[in-house]
Amino acid sequence: MAPSPSDPVAVIGASGALGFGLAVRLAEAGVPIAIGSRDETRAQETAERARATIPDGQFSAHDNAGAAEAAHTVILSVPFRNQAETLHNLAQALAPGQLLIDATVPLAAAVGGKATRTLGVWQGSAAEQAREMAPEGVRVVSALHTVSAASLADLAHPLEQDVLLCGDARADKLGAARLLSLIEGVRCVDCGRLEMARITESLTALLIAVNARYKAHAGVRLAGLPDPVWE
Amino acid sequence: MAPSPSDPVAVIGASGALGFGLAVRLAEAGVPIAIGSRDETRAQETAERARATIPDGQFSAHDNAGAAEAAHTVILSVPFRNQAETLHNLAQALAPGQLLIDATVPLAAAVGGKATRTLGVWQGSAAEQAREMAPEGVRVVSALHTVSAASLADLAHPLEQDVLLCGDARADKLGAARLLSLIEGVRCVDCGRLEMARITESLTALLIAVNARYKAHAGVRLAGLPDPVWE
Repeated sequence: MAPSPSDPVAVIGASGALGFGLAVRLAEAGVPIAIGSRDETRAQETAERARATIPDGQFSAHDNAGAAEAAHTVILSVPFRNQAETLHNLAQALAPGQLLIDATVPLAAAVGGKATRTLGVWQGSAAEQAREMAPEGVRVVSALHTVSAASLADLAHPLEQDVLLCGDARADKLGAARLLSLIEGVRCVDCGRLEMARITESLTALLIAVNARYKAHAGVRLAGLPDPVWE
Repeated sequence: MAPSPSDPVAVIGASGALGFGLAVRLAEAGVPIAIGSRDETRAQETAERARATIPDGQFSAHDNAGAAEAAHTVILSVPFRNQAETLHNLAQALAPGQLLIDATVPLAAAVGGKATRTLGVWQGSAAEQAREMAPEGVRVVSALHTVSAASLADLAHPLEQDVLLCGDARADKLGAARLLSLIEGVRCVDCGRLEMARITESLTALLIAVNARYKAHAGVRLAGLPDPVWE
Protein backbone atom coordinates (compact mmCIF):
# COMPACT_ATOMS: atom_id res chain seq x y z
CA MET A 1 0.00 0.00 0.00
CA ALA A 2 2.87 2.39 0.64
CA PRO A 3 3.91 4.48 -2.35
CA SER A 4 7.16 3.68 -4.09
CA PRO A 5 9.15 6.30 -6.03
CA SER A 6 7.78 4.97 -9.32
CA ASP A 7 4.11 5.51 -8.39
CA PRO A 8 2.71 8.80 -9.65
CA VAL A 9 1.66 11.39 -7.10
CA ALA A 10 -0.99 14.01 -7.71
CA VAL A 11 -0.39 17.54 -6.54
CA ILE A 12 -3.69 19.41 -6.32
CA GLY A 13 -2.95 23.11 -6.43
CA ALA A 14 0.43 22.63 -8.08
CA SER A 15 0.22 26.13 -9.59
CA GLY A 16 0.53 27.57 -6.10
CA ALA A 17 3.89 28.19 -4.48
CA LEU A 18 3.89 25.24 -2.06
CA GLY A 19 2.36 22.86 -4.59
CA PHE A 20 4.91 23.81 -7.22
CA GLY A 21 7.78 23.39 -4.80
CA LEU A 22 6.54 19.94 -3.83
CA ALA A 23 6.05 18.94 -7.44
CA VAL A 24 9.59 19.81 -8.46
CA ARG A 25 11.22 18.38 -5.33
CA LEU A 26 9.37 15.07 -5.71
CA ALA A 27 10.05 14.97 -9.44
CA GLU A 28 13.72 15.58 -8.71
CA ALA A 29 13.57 12.47 -6.53
CA GLY A 30 12.17 10.49 -9.48
CA VAL A 31 8.46 10.57 -8.64
CA PRO A 32 6.11 11.02 -11.62
CA ILE A 33 3.88 14.00 -10.87
CA ALA A 34 0.27 14.55 -11.94
CA ILE A 35 0.01 18.32 -11.90
CA GLY A 36 -3.48 19.38 -10.88
CA SER A 37 -5.01 22.81 -11.23
CA ARG A 38 -8.58 24.09 -11.30
CA ASP A 39 -8.02 25.01 -14.92
CA GLU A 40 -6.30 22.48 -17.18
CA THR A 41 -4.58 25.23 -19.21
CA ARG A 42 -3.07 26.51 -16.00
CA ALA A 43 -1.96 22.94 -15.20
CA GLN A 44 -0.23 22.73 -18.57
CA GLU A 45 1.58 26.02 -17.96
CA THR A 46 2.64 24.77 -14.54
CA ALA A 47 3.88 21.49 -16.03
CA GLU A 48 5.94 23.49 -18.56
CA ARG A 49 7.44 25.52 -15.74
CA ALA A 50 8.16 22.34 -13.79
CA ARG A 51 9.84 20.74 -16.81
CA ALA A 52 12.01 23.84 -17.22
CA THR A 53 13.11 23.36 -13.59
CA ILE A 54 13.53 19.56 -13.69
CA PRO A 55 14.20 18.57 -17.31
CA ASP A 56 14.31 14.87 -16.34
CA GLY A 57 11.07 15.10 -14.38
CA GLN A 58 7.90 13.27 -15.40
CA PHE A 59 4.99 15.66 -15.33
CA SER A 60 1.47 15.28 -16.65
CA ALA A 61 -1.11 18.08 -16.59
CA HIS A 62 -4.74 17.65 -15.50
CA ASP A 63 -7.61 19.45 -13.94
CA ASN A 64 -7.77 18.64 -10.24
CA ALA A 65 -10.15 15.71 -10.64
CA GLY A 66 -8.05 14.24 -13.45
CA ALA A 67 -4.91 14.51 -11.32
CA ALA A 68 -6.61 12.80 -8.37
CA GLU A 69 -7.72 9.96 -10.64
CA ALA A 70 -4.19 9.52 -11.99
CA ALA A 71 -2.48 8.71 -8.69
CA HIS A 72 -2.83 6.63 -5.55
CA THR A 73 -1.40 9.45 -3.44
CA VAL A 74 -2.89 12.91 -3.65
CA ILE A 75 -1.32 15.98 -2.06
CA LEU A 76 -3.84 18.73 -1.38
CA SER A 77 -2.05 22.05 -1.48
CA VAL A 78 -4.62 24.78 -1.95
CA PRO A 79 -5.39 27.96 -0.01
CA PHE A 80 -7.77 27.36 2.89
CA ARG A 81 -10.28 29.61 1.12
CA ASN A 82 -10.52 26.97 -1.62
CA GLN A 83 -10.13 23.77 0.38
CA ALA A 84 -13.78 22.90 0.89
CA GLU A 85 -14.76 23.70 -2.69
CA THR A 86 -11.82 21.70 -4.03
CA LEU A 87 -12.72 18.68 -1.89
CA HIS A 88 -16.34 18.98 -2.96
CA ASN A 89 -15.23 18.88 -6.58
CA LEU A 90 -12.94 15.90 -5.93
CA ALA A 91 -15.71 13.81 -4.36
CA GLN A 92 -16.19 11.72 -7.51
CA ALA A 93 -12.46 11.50 -8.28
CA LEU A 94 -11.21 10.23 -4.93
CA ALA A 95 -11.67 6.56 -4.14
CA PRO A 96 -11.46 4.47 -0.96
CA GLY A 97 -7.88 3.46 -0.16
CA GLN A 98 -6.30 6.57 -1.67
CA LEU A 99 -3.88 8.48 0.51
CA LEU A 100 -4.75 12.17 0.81
CA ILE A 101 -1.93 14.28 2.21
CA ASP A 102 -3.50 17.55 3.31
CA ALA A 103 -1.22 20.57 3.52
CA THR A 104 -3.94 23.18 4.00
CA VAL A 105 -3.35 25.95 6.53
CA PRO A 106 -6.33 27.85 7.94
CA LEU A 107 -4.58 31.22 8.06
CA ALA A 108 -6.66 34.26 8.87
CA ALA A 109 -5.30 35.66 5.61
CA ALA A 110 -8.03 33.57 3.94
CA VAL A 111 -10.56 36.15 5.11
CA GLY A 112 -8.33 39.20 4.89
CA GLY A 113 -6.74 38.76 8.33
CA LYS A 114 -3.10 38.37 9.28
CA ALA A 115 -0.96 35.50 8.09
CA THR A 116 0.37 35.19 11.64
CA ARG A 117 -3.10 34.25 12.88
CA THR A 118 -5.27 31.23 12.27
CA LEU A 119 -8.98 30.70 11.92
CA GLY A 120 -10.89 28.27 14.08
CA VAL A 121 -12.15 25.39 11.97
CA TRP A 122 -15.33 23.75 13.20
CA GLN A 123 -13.92 20.25 12.73
CA GLY A 124 -10.79 21.24 14.64
CA SER A 125 -8.38 21.64 11.75
CA ALA A 126 -8.29 21.86 7.99
CA ALA A 127 -7.11 18.26 7.96
CA GLU A 128 -10.16 17.14 9.90
CA GLN A 129 -12.33 19.11 7.49
CA ALA A 130 -10.61 17.19 4.69
CA ARG A 131 -11.36 13.89 6.43
CA GLU A 132 -14.99 14.86 6.82
CA MET A 133 -15.36 15.95 3.20
CA ALA A 134 -13.35 13.24 1.48
CA PRO A 135 -15.22 10.08 0.44
CA GLU A 136 -15.30 7.37 3.08
CA GLY A 137 -12.25 5.15 2.97
CA VAL A 138 -9.86 7.87 1.79
CA ARG A 139 -6.88 7.87 4.16
CA VAL A 140 -6.05 11.37 5.37
CA VAL A 141 -2.64 12.43 6.66
CA SER A 142 -1.78 16.02 7.55
CA ALA A 143 1.69 17.22 6.61
CA LEU A 144 4.00 19.89 5.28
CA HIS A 145 2.86 22.92 7.25
CA THR A 146 6.32 23.86 8.43
CA VAL A 147 8.10 23.58 5.09
CA SER A 148 8.35 26.90 3.30
CA ALA A 149 7.37 27.12 -0.34
CA ALA A 150 10.42 29.29 -1.00
CA SER A 151 12.80 26.70 0.43
CA LEU A 152 11.17 23.92 -1.57
CA ALA A 153 11.32 25.87 -4.82
CA ASP A 154 14.97 26.75 -4.29
CA LEU A 155 16.50 23.44 -5.31
CA ALA A 156 20.00 24.59 -4.36
CA HIS A 157 18.78 25.06 -0.79
CA PRO A 158 19.30 21.99 1.40
CA LEU A 159 16.13 21.52 3.43
CA GLU A 160 17.49 19.71 6.51
CA GLN A 161 14.20 19.89 8.33
CA ASP A 162 11.30 17.81 9.56
CA VAL A 163 7.90 17.24 8.08
CA LEU A 164 5.41 16.81 10.90
CA LEU A 165 2.82 14.12 10.16
CA CYS A 166 -0.55 13.66 11.83
CA GLY A 167 -2.96 10.87 11.03
CA ASP A 168 -5.10 8.22 12.62
CA ALA A 169 -3.37 5.21 11.07
CA ARG A 170 0.32 4.58 11.43
CA ALA A 171 0.42 2.76 8.08
CA ASP A 172 -0.87 5.89 6.33
CA LYS A 173 1.73 8.05 8.05
CA LEU A 174 4.42 5.56 7.11
CA GLY A 175 3.27 5.77 3.49
CA ALA A 176 3.41 9.55 3.57
CA ALA A 177 6.79 9.42 5.29
CA ARG A 178 8.27 7.09 2.66
CA LEU A 179 7.11 9.42 -0.07
CA LEU A 180 8.09 12.75 1.47
CA SER A 181 11.43 11.45 2.75
CA LEU A 182 12.43 11.04 -0.89
CA ILE A 183 12.97 14.81 -0.79
CA GLU A 184 16.58 15.28 0.22
CA GLY A 185 17.05 16.53 3.74
CA VAL A 186 13.49 15.82 4.83
CA ARG A 187 12.82 13.70 7.89
CA CYS A 188 9.21 12.85 8.67
CA VAL A 189 8.06 12.69 12.29
CA ASP A 190 4.91 10.99 13.56
CA CYS A 191 3.14 13.66 15.60
CA GLY A 192 0.10 11.64 16.55
CA ARG A 193 -3.51 11.46 15.52
CA LEU A 194 -5.14 13.65 12.89
CA GLU A 195 -6.56 15.91 15.59
CA MET A 196 -2.99 17.08 16.32
CA ALA A 197 -3.12 18.84 12.94
CA ARG A 198 -4.78 21.78 14.69
CA ILE A 199 -1.36 22.36 16.26
CA THR A 200 0.87 21.60 13.27
CA GLU A 201 -1.30 23.77 11.02
CA SER A 202 -0.86 26.69 13.40
CA LEU A 203 2.91 26.36 13.08
CA THR A 204 2.70 27.97 9.65
CA ALA A 205 1.48 31.14 11.33
CA LEU A 206 4.24 30.90 13.93
CA LEU A 207 6.92 30.46 11.29
CA ILE A 208 5.53 33.40 9.32
CA ALA A 209 6.00 35.51 12.45
CA VAL A 210 9.53 34.17 12.89
CA ASN A 211 10.37 34.72 9.23
CA ALA A 212 9.17 38.31 9.38
CA ARG A 213 11.62 38.95 12.22
CA TYR A 214 14.60 37.15 10.78
CA LYS A 215 14.02 37.61 7.04
CA ALA A 216 14.36 33.85 6.84
CA HIS A 217 12.52 30.77 5.60
CA ALA A 218 12.57 28.87 8.85
CA GLY A 219 11.62 25.23 9.20
CA VAL A 220 11.34 22.88 12.16
CA ARG A 221 13.73 20.20 13.33
CA LEU A 222 12.72 18.29 16.44
CA ALA A 223 15.63 17.58 18.77
CA GLY A 224 16.05 14.47 20.89
CA LEU A 225 14.37 11.87 18.66
CA PRO A 226 15.77 8.39 18.04
CA ASP A 227 17.64 7.72 14.81
CA PRO A 228 16.07 6.44 12.61
CA VAL A 229 12.63 7.77 13.47
CA TRP A 230 10.84 5.00 11.53
CA GLU A 231 11.87 1.42 12.16
CA MET B 1 17.08 46.58 32.37
CA ALA B 2 18.24 43.24 30.97
CA PRO B 3 19.18 40.68 33.61
CA SER B 4 22.83 39.79 34.07
CA PRO B 5 23.97 36.42 35.46
CA SER B 6 24.50 37.97 38.89
CA ASP B 7 20.90 39.17 39.27
CA PRO B 8 18.69 36.76 41.19
CA VAL B 9 15.83 35.11 39.37
CA ALA B 10 12.67 33.90 41.04
CA VAL B 11 11.20 30.58 40.01
CA ILE B 12 7.54 30.40 41.05
CA GLY B 13 6.56 26.75 41.21
CA ALA B 14 10.13 25.53 41.60
CA SER B 15 8.91 22.39 43.36
CA GLY B 16 7.37 21.25 40.09
CA ALA B 17 9.35 19.34 37.49
CA LEU B 18 9.85 22.17 35.00
CA GLY B 19 10.48 24.76 37.69
CA PHE B 20 13.06 22.57 39.40
CA GLY B 21 14.84 21.86 36.12
CA LEU B 22 14.99 25.58 35.34
CA ALA B 23 16.23 26.40 38.82
CA VAL B 24 19.14 23.96 38.68
CA ARG B 25 20.09 24.77 35.08
CA LEU B 26 20.13 28.51 35.77
CA ALA B 27 22.00 28.00 39.05
CA GLU B 28 24.54 25.88 37.20
CA ALA B 29 25.06 28.91 34.95
CA GLY B 30 25.76 31.06 38.01
CA VAL B 31 22.37 32.70 38.46
CA PRO B 32 21.20 33.10 42.10
CA ILE B 33 17.77 31.49 42.37
CA ALA B 34 14.90 32.52 44.62
CA ILE B 35 12.98 29.27 44.98
CA GLY B 36 9.26 29.97 45.27
CA SER B 37 6.58 27.56 46.38
CA ARG B 38 3.07 27.98 47.74
CA ASP B 39 4.35 26.61 51.03
CA GLU B 40 7.64 27.93 52.39
CA THR B 41 8.54 24.56 53.93
CA ARG B 42 8.15 22.99 50.51
CA ALA B 43 10.38 25.75 49.10
CA GLN B 44 13.05 24.90 51.68
CA GLU B 45 12.90 21.21 50.77
CA THR B 46 13.19 22.14 47.11
CA ALA B 47 16.16 24.40 47.83
CA GLU B 48 17.84 21.48 49.67
CA ARG B 49 17.24 19.23 46.71
CA ALA B 50 18.61 21.90 44.36
CA ARG B 51 21.73 22.35 46.52
CA ALA B 52 22.28 18.59 46.42
CA THR B 53 22.19 18.81 42.62
CA ILE B 54 24.26 22.00 42.25
CA PRO B 55 26.48 22.31 45.36
CA ASP B 56 27.89 25.63 44.12
CA GLY B 57 24.44 27.02 43.37
CA GLN B 58 22.95 29.99 45.21
CA PHE B 59 19.44 29.15 46.34
CA SER B 60 17.12 30.96 48.71
CA ALA B 61 13.71 29.62 49.74
CA HIS B 62 10.52 31.68 49.89
CA ASP B 63 6.81 31.48 49.52
CA ASN B 64 5.80 32.58 46.02
CA ALA B 65 5.26 36.22 46.95
CA GLY B 66 8.59 36.35 48.78
CA ALA B 67 10.38 34.91 45.77
CA ALA B 68 8.75 37.42 43.41
CA GLU B 69 9.84 40.27 45.69
CA ALA B 70 13.42 38.99 45.74
CA ALA B 71 14.10 39.22 42.02
CA HIS B 72 13.70 41.48 39.02
CA THR B 73 12.93 38.51 36.79
CA VAL B 74 10.22 36.06 37.75
CA ILE B 75 9.64 32.76 35.99
CA LEU B 76 6.10 31.46 36.41
CA SER B 77 6.14 27.70 36.16
CA VAL B 78 2.96 26.36 37.69
CA PRO B 79 0.25 24.04 36.38
CA PHE B 80 -2.43 25.85 34.39
CA ARG B 81 -4.92 24.82 37.06
CA ASN B 82 -3.04 27.06 39.51
CA GLN B 83 -1.97 29.91 37.24
CA ALA B 84 -4.80 32.34 37.91
CA GLU B 85 -4.76 31.76 41.66
CA THR B 86 -0.98 32.15 41.76
CA LEU B 87 -1.10 35.40 39.82
CA HIS B 88 -3.90 36.66 42.05
CA ASN B 89 -1.72 35.96 45.08
CA LEU B 90 1.28 37.66 43.46
CA ALA B 91 -0.61 40.88 42.75
CA GLN B 92 0.97 42.70 45.69
CA ALA B 93 4.42 41.18 45.17
CA LEU B 94 4.91 42.04 41.51
CA ALA B 95 5.91 45.58 40.60
CA PRO B 96 5.96 47.60 37.38
CA GLY B 97 9.10 46.97 35.36
CA GLN B 98 9.54 43.40 36.51
CA LEU B 99 9.98 40.79 33.82
CA LEU B 100 7.53 37.90 34.13
CA ILE B 101 8.46 34.88 32.05
CA ASP B 102 5.35 32.76 31.78
CA ALA B 103 5.83 29.05 31.08
CA THR B 104 2.25 27.99 31.74
CA VAL B 105 0.66 25.45 29.39
CA PRO B 106 -3.13 25.19 29.21
CA LEU B 107 -3.20 21.41 28.78
CA ALA B 108 -6.56 19.68 28.95
CA ALA B 109 -4.95 17.57 31.68
CA ALA B 110 -5.75 20.50 33.99
CA VAL B 111 -9.38 19.41 33.93
CA GLY B 112 -8.80 15.69 33.65
CA GLY B 113 -8.43 15.66 29.86
CA LYS B 114 -5.56 14.48 27.72
CA ALA B 115 -2.08 15.99 27.89
CA THR B 116 -2.04 15.97 24.08
CA ARG B 117 -4.91 18.45 24.01
CA THR B 118 -5.17 22.06 25.06
CA LEU B 119 -7.91 24.14 26.58
CA GLY B 120 -9.16 27.34 24.99
CA VAL B 121 -8.21 30.29 27.16
CA TRP B 122 -10.54 33.25 26.93
CA GLN B 123 -7.66 35.73 26.62
CA GLY B 124 -6.12 33.61 23.86
CA SER B 125 -3.34 31.95 25.81
CA ALA B 126 -2.12 31.41 29.32
CA ALA B 127 0.48 34.11 28.67
CA GLU B 128 -2.22 36.60 27.76
CA GLN B 129 -4.09 35.62 30.91
CA ALA B 130 -0.87 36.35 32.81
CA ARG B 131 -0.60 39.74 31.17
CA GLU B 132 -4.19 40.53 32.07
CA MET B 133 -3.78 39.44 35.69
CA ALA B 134 -0.33 40.82 36.43
CA PRO B 135 -0.15 44.38 37.77
CA GLU B 136 0.11 47.06 35.10
CA GLY B 137 3.67 47.66 34.01
CA VAL B 138 4.85 44.08 34.55
CA ARG B 139 6.54 42.95 31.34
CA VAL B 140 5.27 39.56 30.21
CA VAL B 141 7.21 37.21 27.95
CA SER B 142 6.03 33.71 27.11
CA ALA B 143 8.70 31.00 26.92
CA LEU B 144 9.90 27.49 27.63
CA HIS B 145 6.93 25.45 26.40
CA THR B 146 9.01 23.16 24.23
CA VAL B 147 11.74 22.36 26.74
CA SER B 148 11.06 19.14 28.61
CA ALA B 149 11.35 19.08 32.37
CA ALA B 150 13.14 15.75 32.16
CA SER B 151 15.80 17.11 29.80
CA LEU B 152 16.34 20.15 32.02
CA ALA B 153 16.69 18.09 35.17
CA ASP B 154 19.16 15.72 33.54
CA LEU B 155 22.24 17.92 33.72
CA ALA B 156 24.32 15.41 31.76
CA HIS B 157 21.89 15.81 28.86
CA PRO B 158 22.98 18.49 26.35
CA LEU B 159 19.88 20.51 25.45
CA GLU B 160 20.79 21.76 21.96
CA GLN B 161 17.38 23.21 21.36
CA ASP B 162 15.47 26.45 21.01
CA VAL B 163 13.38 28.35 23.49
CA LEU B 164 10.56 30.07 21.63
CA LEU B 165 9.85 33.56 22.98
CA CYS B 166 6.70 35.60 22.49
CA GLY B 167 6.19 39.09 23.82
CA ASP B 168 5.06 42.54 22.82
CA ALA B 169 8.35 44.33 23.44
CA ARG B 170 11.58 43.28 21.84
CA ALA B 171 13.60 44.58 24.81
CA ASP B 172 11.71 42.22 27.12
CA LYS B 173 12.33 39.28 24.83
CA LEU B 174 15.99 40.24 24.61
CA GLY B 175 16.15 40.26 28.41
CA ALA B 176 14.56 36.84 28.60
CA ALA B 177 16.87 35.59 25.84
CA ARG B 178 19.98 36.81 27.64
CA LEU B 179 18.90 35.00 30.78
CA LEU B 180 17.73 31.73 29.27
CA SER B 181 20.65 31.51 26.86
CA LEU B 182 22.87 31.14 29.92
CA ILE B 183 21.63 27.53 29.95
CA GLU B 184 24.10 25.62 27.84
CA GLY B 185 22.76 24.56 24.45
CA VAL B 186 19.76 26.88 24.58
CA ARG B 187 19.11 29.31 21.75
CA CYS B 188 16.23 31.74 22.15
CA VAL B 189 14.13 32.68 19.11
CA ASP B 190 11.86 35.70 18.83
CA CYS B 191 8.50 34.27 17.71
CA GLY B 192 6.58 37.49 17.68
CA ARG B 193 3.98 39.16 19.83
CA LEU B 194 2.53 37.73 23.01
CA GLU B 195 -0.56 36.56 21.13
CA MET B 196 1.64 34.00 19.36
CA ALA B 197 1.88 32.21 22.71
CA ARG B 198 -1.37 30.46 21.85
CA ILE B 199 0.69 28.55 19.30
CA THR B 200 3.88 27.99 21.29
CA GLU B 201 1.86 26.84 24.31
CA SER B 202 0.13 24.24 22.17
CA LEU B 203 3.52 22.83 21.19
CA THR B 204 3.78 21.21 24.61
CA ALA B 205 0.79 19.06 23.70
CA LEU B 206 2.32 18.26 20.31
CA LEU B 207 5.63 17.25 21.87
CA ILE B 208 3.83 15.07 24.42
CA ALA B 209 2.23 13.23 21.48
CA VAL B 210 5.63 12.91 19.79
CA ASN B 211 7.30 11.75 23.00
CA ALA B 212 4.65 9.07 23.54
CA ARG B 213 5.45 7.66 20.12
CA TYR B 214 9.24 7.84 20.32
CA LYS B 215 9.78 7.38 24.07
CA ALA B 216 11.80 10.57 23.84
CA HIS B 217 12.05 14.02 25.37
CA ALA B 218 11.87 15.96 22.15
CA GLY B 219 12.57 19.66 21.84
CA VAL B 220 12.39 22.11 18.97
CA ARG B 221 15.17 23.55 16.85
CA LEU B 222 14.16 25.95 14.11
CA ALA B 223 16.11 25.49 10.89
CA GLY B 224 17.14 28.25 8.52
CA LEU B 225 17.65 31.12 10.96
CA PRO B 226 20.56 33.55 10.79
CA ASP B 227 23.47 33.07 13.15
CA PRO B 228 23.46 34.71 15.63
CA VAL B 229 19.72 35.14 16.08
CA TRP B 230 20.12 38.25 18.27
CA GLU B 231 22.38 41.02 17.08
